[in-house]
Parts: sequence; structure tokens; C-alpha cells
Amino acid sequence: MKKNYTDLKVGILGGGQLARMLVLKGHEMGLKMHVLSASKEDPAAQVTSYWHKGNIQNSRDLKSFLSQVDVATFESEFLPGPALTQLSRETKTPIRPRPSLMEKIQDRWTQKKLMKKWAIPTAEFVRIKNFRDAFQAMDLFPAGMVLKKRRFGYDGYGTFIVKSHQDLNRIRRAIEDSKEGFIAEELIPFKRELAIIVARNRHEQVITLPLVETKQVDSRCFWVKGPVQHKSIRSIKPKLVQFVKELKYEGVMAFELFDTQSRLLVNEIAPRVHNSAHYSLDALDMDQFTLHLRAVLGMDLKKPEAKASGFAMVNLLGRSTKTPKWQLPAETRLHWYGKGENRPGRKMGHINTLGSTPARALEMALKSEKEFQL
Amino acid sequence: MKKNYTDLKVGILGGGQLARMLVLKGHEMGLKMHVLSASKEDPAAQVTSYWHKGNIQNSRDLKSFLSQVDVATFESEFLPGPALTQLSRETKTPIRPRPSLMEKIQDRWTQKKLMKKWAIPTAEFVRIKNFRDAFQAMDLFPAGMVLKKRRFGYDGYGTFIVKSHQDLNRIRRAIEDSKEGFIAEELIPFKRELAIIVARNRHEQVITLPLVETKQVDSRCFWVKGPVQHKSIRSIKPKLVQFVKELKYEGVMAFELFDTQSRLLVNEIAPRVHNSAHYSLDALDMDQFTLHLRAVLGMDLKKPEAKASGFAMVNLLGRSTKTPKWQLPAETRLHWYGKGENRPGRKMGHINTLGSTPARALEMALKSEKEFQL
Repeated sequence: MKKNYTDLKVGILGGGQLARMLVLKGHEMGLKMHVLSASKEDPAAQVTSYWHKGNIQNSRDLKSFLSQVDVATFESEFLPGPALTQLSRETKTPIRPRPSLMEKIQDRWTQKKLMKKWAIPTAEFVRIKNFRDAFQAMDLFPAGMVLKKRRFGYDGYGTFIVKSHQDLNRIRRAIEDSKEGFIAEELIPFKRELAIIVARNRHEQVITLPLVETKQVDSRCFWVKGPVQHKSIRSIKPKLVQFVKELKYEGVMAFELFDTQSRLLVNEIAPRVHNSAHYSLDALDMDQFTLHLRAVLGMDLKKPEAKASGFAMVNLLGRSTKTPKWQLPAETRLHWYGKGENRPGRKMGHINTLGSTPARALEMALKSEKEFQL
Repeated sequence: MKKNYTDLKVGILGGGQLARMLVLKGHEMGLKMHVLSASKEDPAAQVTSYWHKGNIQNSRDLKSFLSQVDVATFESEFLPGPALTQLSRETKTPIRPRPSLMEKIQDRWTQKKLMKKWAIPTAEFVRIKNFRDAFQAMDLFPAGMVLKKRRFGYDGYGTFIVKSHQDLNRIRRAIEDSKEGFIAEELIPFKRELAIIVARNRHEQVITLPLVETKQVDSRCFWVKGPVQHKSIRSIKPKLVQFVKELKYEGVMAFELFDTQSRLLVNEIAPRVHNSAHYSLDALDMDQFTLHLRAVLGMDLKKPEAKASGFAMVNLLGRSTKTPKWQLPAETRLHWYGKGENRPGRKMGHINTLGSTPARALEMALKSEKEFQL
């Protein structure tokens, strides 16, 4: 990678909203932001002149793209890991975070094993290869379990809550048809869900963003507010820091947590920028996208500071297939993704607010969200 | 103009750094940001997929561009006003601020007359058509005068300080060769230069940004710090607000001021976003670019709030033709314009800082600026 950041070509694999926000922040820093995606109308493709048409699952497209940039990163962990490792070597273009790590994290089984290895507190789990495994797992988790597809699960897709044999029989087909299998986790009754971002660069600088509460509705993130506190975060944070150090991770990593009142358990890890930290675009003096790029490029990191004592983010989720309409009040900051089609449940954009408390910021954001005809 | 902002096509005439920052902030809002400029490598052309090749002085290029967008604005007031007024009518595409106003402001003679008309305090002035006019003006302004080309002056180009007949003779040729003529202004000995932004939308909402101090070196803005105070701003601000209201101005307007200790005089007006308010990208909860777009589109405006008690901006001005190098500390925010060529005096980017006082923020920004090998 070139030593000088001026004119550095940074490639983003994927063209969705996470890629879009990475591109916008990269432009601010003067990086040449290249995007590989299927359509010129993709959210990230619209916001740069360095768009490359291609399929992020296709080795030829990936190779051509990688050979035209100085360094690459991604917006989704569901990419072909072995192929990327090989292509990165062939093209001499570093991909950060490393594809081998991405691969481990994209698979819930290896992700959980990684957590166990580095003593990250998480729900108990077993591997499920077939229906019989699932049936037996019910004895292990008598209070209920969560079955998750090992790979490609997203926003609740591929996740099933099983509390009875009836529940299990209902998804028998899904289990039997699956080639890759599932994991079964102990069902954790939680009070609320939290999230935290950790970023590391290759110079061993590690920083964390504030702990936030996230609210899921229909398995999709609806809102985030922060900062929040939990007595256990002081003991867990050093483990998360140690985790990214041991993995020699480069970039932003998101941890989703269950708060069971008495303890914090890591539910999932994402090796990328994350919906739970979109608030950072307006609430911190450095947002997660800038932070990710800085971490990927090995630039100096410092702990971002909050600009207000409370902040919130509300996702704008499609409710129809009509063209959305809005009249945005000036008190909120809109981040709209420019998606061509509206669909129920689709993340169309988000709004950020600041306030004297997290609750007040959230109240304003939820009120503002109502002004959108989605 | 469409009522709904979603998918609204906003055209920017010009592809420089001001256009680039308008485009980036427009993307955030989900607007489709179109750019008309000469080269695909222009700062703004790099950051959108909706780039249109063309000359902003050419009627045919302008017409084609205007016919493809819903509303347009500009980054420089030196555009062909009458042609734009006509083309806006033909294509039914509004241009905001209105080209007729832009035209009045691009000409220092009509700009000064406008200020006089609306009682904006400004230095005394006369029109200079030929060398004899200039010679006679010296009697009017015995303490010295500033000669300014009526149009296309920029960053000191076309501006001459005249304190003696010798000074005047030195620029005789420039005056005699000029078709459009000059104005002569009383030379104002000032303590410091200040600037302030006023924004108005068509719903008569008017807001102002904080008063800031600006430091020029070699006629180019070097740094800005704020907020600053001056006892006369309370009496002048209502006049500036009245001014934009009377003109039915839509967008952001920048006022450059002389602080003579005893009074404030408006030196120049710019009908657009302005270098003196680049600090707003990081120091306010709404930046001047977002504000300009909101004002142009008739969206709700509110007075932006500062996120710190002090802020500063330092321009990164080229010092050579070598490729710039930098290692940016994490405490500052870099806005790099992605210009293809470095040149002495060229605005290559800027850095913003926050601090407990304006002086501390400036100190940090100036220290950081030294880390750039420009």
C-alpha cells in the first residue's frame, strides 16, 4: 500500500448503504473511492465517478476490480473468503479486514468458536448438522433455543426460535434442506439489546465507541439510542479489545450484546461498519465510516467524543412500494440512501438526532420518523 | 419544482471544491446530485455518477444540463446572468439564487449600489470607466483607495491598492485595457476581517451563522476562527436579514466585513457558499452546504448550533507542484478536494478543529497544517 494517502484508490466491495456512507466519508478525506457493484443505480454507485460494474461473488470481476485499487474493504461479510484471499495475493492488493477473518466470522459456528477461544461471554451453542442434532439440542436447552443458519442469515432471515417440538417440526424442512447446517444457541431472555463498536489499526491502536441500546422490530433494527451504561461493560470491554488485537483485526468491528440485567452476552459479531453506529455520523466528532477507513489504512486513531449528552438514530424502513415522501424538520439530520425501489421493511435511510438525554433524542427522532410517508 | 424531495435532481453549475461539498451533502440527503463541469477529474465530478461534461459559460451546454435537472444552483457568481435567466425560463428549471441577482452581485458596481440601496454599511465608492476617472478618484479618497475590476475578480486578482500617483501609473495599462471598468473604494484601515453567513428560503425563514474572523494571506483566505463578537453586529445583522428578504434571495449569502474597531463595514458579498464557513462542516449541527441546499429547495431552516465553544478552519494551500503528502492526526477533520494538480496558492483542501476557545482551536489547526507537505 502506498505511504501517501493522497490519490489513494480505495475499493469497496458492494454498493449498498454501508458502502455509500463509506464512499461519502472517503471523499471527504480526498480518497479516490471505487465501488464494485451490480447496478449503476446502487446506493454507493450513485455517489462516485469510480464505479465498476460487476458481481461481488464473481472471481473474475473481483480480480479486475482489485487490480485497479490500492486497498479494498467490504460492506458485507458474505463474500467468498478463500477466493478473496487468493485474489488479494495475486493482485497484491490488501483487503482489510483480512478475508480469512471475514470467512471465520461469516460462519456462525466458527464465529462462536472464536468467541469461546478468546473468552468473549456468549450464549452456549452446539452445531446442528441435521434434524436429529436439532432434536437432541432441545434437551440441552430445555428453556428454548435459537436455530441460526451457519451462513447468510441477515435481519432475522435464517433464524428460528424453538421452544417446543411443534416449533421444531415446523422448520424441519428448512433444516433438512440446508447444506451448510445450523447452530443452536441457548435462548437468552434479555431485557434489552446493546451494541458497541471497536476499531483497531495495524499500529495496535484500539478505540471503542459508546455503548448504545438497539431496538429491533420484526428482526430489523428500528432505533438506537445512547450513550447507555451497564455495570458489566467495564469487564467486557477489555476482552473485546483483546479480541481484535489477538485477531490482528484491521477496521471497525461491531458487537451486538444481550443485556440480561445481571450480565452482558455477545450475541453476534460483524466485521464491518454497522447499523447500530449510524448515530456516529452526527453524534460523534468522528463517525464509524471515517474510523473504519482510517483503521483500514493504518491512520492514527483516537477515541471519538460525543457532541451531546444524548443521541439517537431511527431507521426509515419502507412500509409500502410507493415512492416515499417527506418534509424533514430542521432539527434532525437525514441520511437517505437513494434506493431505487421502496419495499416493506427495506432500509431506505435513517435520521439522527441529538438531545440532552438519550430518551429525549429518541423521542425527537421517533416523532420525526412519523413525518415520512414510507 | 417537485414537492417531494426524494429523487429530486439537483444540478450544480461548476465542478470545483464548493460544488464538491454541495454534492457530498446533497448525497447525504438522498438528492440526485448532478454536476456540469469541463473535466471528469474535477473535484465535484469525482463524487457523483451524475456528471455532465460541459462548459458552464456555454448556453447550449447549460440548456442541455438544465433540461435534465429539477432545480439548479451554482458555486461561482461569474456565470452569464442574462443567458441563465432565459434558459431557466425555457427549460422551466428554477435556478436559485436567481440569476438576475447573481448578475447584480457579480458586478462590484451594481453590488455596491445594492448595498447602498438597502443601507448596508460599506466603504464609499465611485465608478471608474477610464484612467481619468481613477485619477480624479484620488482626490475623493486622499488616504488611499482600492481599485477593483467590476467583474471576475477573485482571491485578490483584479484588485489594486492605490496610495499614490505612482501606484496609479503602475496600473494605468490595466485600467485602460479593461472593457468593463473598475470601481474605486475608500481604503479602509481595518483591525481584522470578519465574515457572516445569512440564509433565506422562499418561506421567509432567515437564519444566520456565527460571526467569524478570517485571515487573508496574499489575498487568499488562510484561516478562519470563531465565534467572535463585535458590538456593532447586533445593529448590522437585522440589516443583512432585511437585505436578503428584500431581494427575495434563496440560498446562503456570505458577507465579508472589515472591523475598524469602531465600526463594521461590509466589504464584499458572495451569493453562494463561502470559504469563510467551511468550519461549519464540523463545528455546527448543520453545515453551510446542507443549509444552502435546504434554502434553495424551500425546506425548513433552523439556526444551527455550535458543537464547541471554539472552532477553526485552516486552508491547505499548495506550496509547490509536487504531490502533497500528509499524515493527519486524528484530532482534526480533513476535507481534501481531490484536485489533480497541486499549484502554489491553490486551495487543495482544508482542516477543521474544535476547541475550548477559538484561539485554541486555531492553534491546533495551524499545528496540524504544518504536517502537510504541500
